[in-house]
Amino acid sequence: VTGEFVAIGRLARHLPPQTVNGVSRGEVWIGDDAAVLRTPTRPWTVLAADAVVDGVHADLRLTTLQDLGWKALTCNLSDVAAMGADPGHALVTVAGPAGTDLEALYEGLGSAATIYGCPVVGGDLTNAPVLVVSVAVTGTADGPPVLRSGGRAGDGIWVTGPLGASAAGLRLLRGGSGRAPVAPEDMALVDAHARPVPRLAEGRAARAAGATAMIDVSDGLGADLGHLADASGIGFELDEVPVAAGATRAEALAGGEDYELVFTAADPARVVDAFASLRRPTQIGRCVGDPQRRVIGTEQLLAWGWQHRW
Amino acid sequence: VTGEFVAIGRLARHLPPQTVNGVSRGEVWIGDDAAVLRTPTRPWTVLAADAVVDGVHADLRLTTLQDLGWKALTCNLSDVAAMGADPGHALVTVAGPAGTDLEALYEGLGSAATIYGCPVVGGDLTNAPVLVVSVAVTGTADGPPVLRSGGRAGDGIWVTGPLGASAAGLRLLRGGSGRAPVAPEDMALVDAHARPVPRLAEGRAARAAGATAMIDVSDGLGADLGHLADASGIGFELDEVPVAAGATRAEALAGGEDYELVFTAADPARVVDAFASLRRPTQIGRCVGDPQRRVIGTEQLLAWGWQHRW
Repeated sequence: VTGEFVAIGRLARHLPPQTVNGVSRGEVWIGDDAAVLRTPTRPWTVLAADAVVDGVHADLRLTTLQDLGWKALTCNLSDVAAMGADPGHALVTVAGPAGTDLEALYEGLGSAATIYGCPVVGGDLTNAPVLVVSVAVTGTADGPPVLRSGGRAGDGIWVTGPLGASAAGLRLLRGGSGRAPVAPEDMALVDAHARPVPRLAEGRAARAAGATAMIDVSDGLGADLGHLADASGIGFELDEVPVAAGATRAEALAGGEDYELVFTAADPARVVDAFASLRRPTQIGRCVGDPQRRVIGTEQLLAWGWQHRW
Repeated sequence: VTGEFVAIGRLARHLPPQTVNGVSRGEVWIGDDAAVLRTPTRPWTVLAADAVVDGVHADLRLTTLQDLGWKALTCNLSDVAAMGADPGHALVTVAGPAGTDLEALYEGLGSAATIYGCPVVGGDLTNAPVLVVSVAVTGTADGPPVLRSGGRAGDGIWVTGPLGASAAGLRLLRGGSGRAPVAPEDMALVDAHARPVPRLAEGRAARAAGATAMIDVSDGLGADLGHLADASGIGFELDEVPVAAGATRAEALAGGEDYELVFTAADPARVVDAFASLRRPTQIGRCVGDPQRRVIGTEQLLAWGWQHRW
């Protein structure tokens, strides 16, 4: 057990150094009342916040603190991706019990921060009986971000990758005894659950393709596409969705935490062009005018998904 | 008990409407993956985050949820004030048990947001066994923010108001039986504890006065002035500090949560000018070159203050 200020000093080692590219003269990150940054020159700013709670979003018997840190930042970066924006900076607030291995947590946070170019420039450390990692991120865009509300009847619906891998990975972890290893061929699924990838390049490409609406698949396709349809005042008809190898169709439709992006766009040729250097997204259906109509094939697509209770 | 999305809809009522002054065309606050804002045109941005935890920072047997919400935002605004910056926008993440009266919490958050001009534009609601309210705020300034690190030997040290009221208010609350009323003449102290005031105008004035370093008194004068001295590489000699009516000298020196600002500046005349329309700050001492020398009168000023344990 150590004091807060010693802990902050140790953790700073896991955060990208203050002299990397992008740090302008006069900027100050860790160690003052607030981080000081040059205001970005791009015309649009996005702000998002998401928390990860031990026992609710993650089970530390199945998840390392490194992975928890990774997920706490990347689920926020996924929100930035879903706007078609680029990451700016992150603030990380950790509330947790004395004895929490903060270095492990910040190792995961720092890895994601470095890989995706979103330095952690501040935050707070505070004691609490349960571990809650709250992250807030900024992002910027040089054009209007893609909202959930712009989908129009006739637009195609695309998804940036197969779904269900995260839910399948969690199923495999739960089937094992605690941290017991799983079969090698299952490791890709476990990885998809433990180290989700924010689809930042894909979000930018979708915006370049003229995407009319976009959301990330965090709660489950049915729930998230439902949010997009609600915001846009539309319904949808899906043909089928790409299911990750090793996942079930139910996991793909309702599993959540895949962090692939779902977007609507009017012109398939622009989508193909914009994704020329990326994995090509799959068109899974189209928007329709009747907001009640939300089907996959002949089935109703249930808006099942995780909701916290209040 | 209700669902997350219904709860968000209800809470939006407590947040300033999206059409008030300052909301530019194309901005979107609540309801998308991220809030969308016009990038501010001022050259400097500050980012700060702070959390309030039930049972650690606040005792819900002594504090209402309205006051907890107020404090969660204002302790962040105090960090913005301590940079000499103006508030921008806030993100609020609430992790807590089902049944938490979110409307009461957001009533307090919304009041502070409206009064201090820092609208809540997003965040997250998630379940957790204990209530943790994490807030992140942005701010802007048209000149370089005031850091902790610019204090120089010979600078005067000022405080923007008397200290100890918050600690005295907490003492009175604890002395009572739970929420029992306290004597009318004590209510100012209880208010100072329950509804701290971020010294935003004072922070701007200090920057205008050429303040070389600044910090807010959140942990206690000894601890916070110690942080400033550490960052500036200086020591200090204090004469005496203004003690709030009804507070003890010990509460003023070590109590914390007063959220007054302490700043260093070279020119007393500029300080008087810059604070012409505000309560005049009190010069409490001066910076000295020896970083070991940290005294009030002939006593060592202990850097006592709250530290979380890790």
